[in-house]
Amino acid sequence: MVETRKLQGQSGSGASALFQLLRDGNPRTRAELATVTGLARSTIAQRIGSLIDLGFVTPVGDAASTGGRPSSQFSLNHSARLIIGADLGASHISLAITDLAARPLAEVRANMDITDGPEKVLSFILDRSTELLESLGRSLDDVLAIGLGLPGPVEHATGLPINPPIMPGWDRFDVSGWLRNRVDVPVLVDNDVNVMALGARSLAFATVDDLLFMKVATGIGAGVISNGELLRGAQGIAGDIGHVQVARAAGIACRCGSTGCLEAVASGPAIASALARAGLDVDTPEQVVELVKAGNVEAIQAVRQAGRDIGDVLTTCVSLINPSVIVLGGSMALAGEHLIAGVREVVYTRSMPLATEHLSIVQSGTNDRAGVIGASILALSHVLSPESIDAMVA
Amino acid sequence: MVETRKLQGQSGSGASALFQLLRDGNPRTRAELATVTGLARSTIAQRIGSLIDLGFVTPVGDAASTGGRPSSQFSLNHSARLIIGADLGASHISLAITDLAARPLAEVRANMDITDGPEKVLSFILDRSTELLESLGRSLDDVLAIGLGLPGPVEHATGLPINPPIMPGWDRFDVSGWLRNRVDVPVLVDNDVNVMALGARSLAFATVDDLLFMKVATGIGAGVISNGELLRGAQGIAGDIGHVQVARAAGIACRCGSTGCLEAVASGPAIASALARAGLDVDTPEQVVELVKAGNVEAIQAVRQAGRDIGDVLTTCVSLINPSVIVLGGSMALAGEHLIAGVREVVYTRSMPLATEHLSIVQSGTNDRAGVIGASILALSHVLSPESIDAMVA
Repeated sequence: MVETRKLQGQSGSGASALFQLLRDGNPRTRAELATVTGLARSTIAQRIGSLIDLGFVTPVGDAASTGGRPSSQFSLNHSARLIIGADLGASHISLAITDLAARPLAEVRANMDITDGPEKVLSFILDRSTELLESLGRSLDDVLAIGLGLPGPVEHATGLPINPPIMPGWDRFDVSGWLRNRVDVPVLVDNDVNVMALGARSLAFATVDDLLFMKVATGIGAGVISNGELLRGAQGIAGDIGHVQVARAAGIACRCGSTGCLEAVASGPAIASALARAGLDVDTPEQVVELVKAGNVEAIQAVRQAGRDIGDVLTTCVSLINPSVIVLGGSMALAGEHLIAGVREVVYTRSMPLATEHLSIVQSGTNDRAGVIGASILALSHVLSPESIDAMVA
Repeated sequence: MVETRKLQGQSGSGASALFQLLRDGNPRTRAELATVTGLARSTIAQRIGSLIDLGFVTPVGDAASTGGRPSSQFSLNHSARLIIGADLGASHISLAITDLAARPLAEVRANMDITDGPEKVLSFILDRSTELLESLGRSLDDVLAIGLGLPGPVEHATGLPINPPIMPGWDRFDVSGWLRNRVDVPVLVDNDVNVMALGARSLAFATVDDLLFMKVATGIGAGVISNGELLRGAQGIAGDIGHVQVARAAGIACRCGSTGCLEAVASGPAIASALARAGLDVDTPEQVVELVKAGNVEAIQAVRQAGRDIGDVLTTCVSLINPSVIVLGGSMALAGEHLIAGVREVVYTRSMPLATEHLSIVQSGTNDRAGVIGASILALSHVLSPESIDAMVA
């Protein structure tokens, strides 16, 4: 049976059911909780007691103002515990302390070179997190979990970076273990694009269950949310579509060792190289974005063509997974409407009408925050899962 | 939160938790059930009683042989109720009566023309089902649900066929409603490829959570199982990759109205037309398969090339969803190893090593039965869901 295993895995003991109900932030009475869950009033009282002891649930409502008999309503205490969310890029780190609803309470963005290696980078994260926590009058003791997005492939089962091309020194480094030795909480690690997909959905498309987040920067990759959940695939490398072959890239060498990859013509460095070969004074993706913003026609045409190449690959993705939203993010998406115009041109022309009738292709309006908030959500969906809550209550 | 809604939807009352536990077929005592679920012994006794009243659960074990005190073990009664599973093709119907574990108890395969329209075809299904049930000493009263696979796009939310190209007279016909007027049970409808994916997984890859079933016949389409569940997409048309553009099809008209589609070069009719244009005496896909089996070199080369074209599209699919198994089914997959050889040639050459390291590309060994068993599973996963069980017990 397709459904069996998952259902068994989610038959929580009941404390988790109460917790999930209260996650919407609305206060409820014991009677209301009993009606919705079907649990006995005595069971409700006991489990609410456990959740109050853990600090997750707090009494609220009328009784609080009279100070007399015990409070009759309960709601989730979103700032009872905190989450550290970190989004690591090749040359920067975005860091946020969030509450249990993944709302940032304090944030920082800093330059940092991922090639400094894991120990230096992770120490930097811990130091900055401690400072942010202090600014909130809190400490590492208040942290419930840590979520991290890394700019490279991460094995889902272990959280290990696997042969990440732009992260020398990180290959199979035990990121979670290193952090847990210093802060004894669960540490969740995923690749940056998956984390951005989670964040982009939460920030702008909370009701969308089928979303593809496409990052176009130094590398190209997608994070897919399907039926409301991150699609990871058998080895956890779903979405790694930067090395799909496209016609225009035929024969062009890619940094992956193959030729003809999408990244070899449509990534930031690929566009910069092509413009430099055409005689423009351009060396980096950032300079491409500047040229585009300055109205340079060759740069605009190059970015638009990159959008078409990306659209070429996305057309197959649209047919295969039928998303309702495609979000384009990453540094190259900042170059105005030209990248997205190329993508739309191809996807809307070539896809089946039924698949594009309700498809929105949009630019990420939340580039910086999507990563850190997604990292926080990654951690939250683990530590606030029914299994975790039930284990804490047991 | 990404996970919240689903979790809330699955917080069953407890009868469903017992039911799911017992679905593996192993008998258990009340004490064992209490230990695993954490429910009170009295609650277990009450809910087991309800499931016995519904006929789903039956007492078994030592007490049954002594005839004395009440039985101490309980297990699921798989043949308490029956499922009708039907897989409709362009010119045939496969039909099975299955038990609650989707095991066929009686089967029939018959020629039937889908263009006869829904009333005639559905009447035919009911008549043959009644005969099969009678052969088992059962009747339509024993049927718990009906599952149907249709050879065209089906809107997931409503079960309506939407503008299905090879099914004149079926567009937006209320298949479920028509059947429910005659047999008052839930009717689940999906497209044939989704249903085949469910069946192929159940029959041969029960432990595989990420599988793509590719049907190559009159049409081309895929059914995707991701993280153990059917991937449907926003409009329920995920997997409709027959009309993705491939280089070799550039300029070739497709029956969909577009040009350059995969189906225009790699479907059974497309291969037959190409061979006829090359001077061979071939008119139908079946004749192509016969020629291949007879060792005709042109036919073999044409099928192999179709495999490469399909591999071209599958390469992107592999990168996007990272399956561990691709199953090739449909009538053209019957033409020996040539189609699959072409698919493998391209997918293993062009995909990222990490994505193909553990990827199996196999021929469906269960062509006929995958459809009917998948249709039964489709129906079962609805009527035996926690919500349905809890509603029956309530």
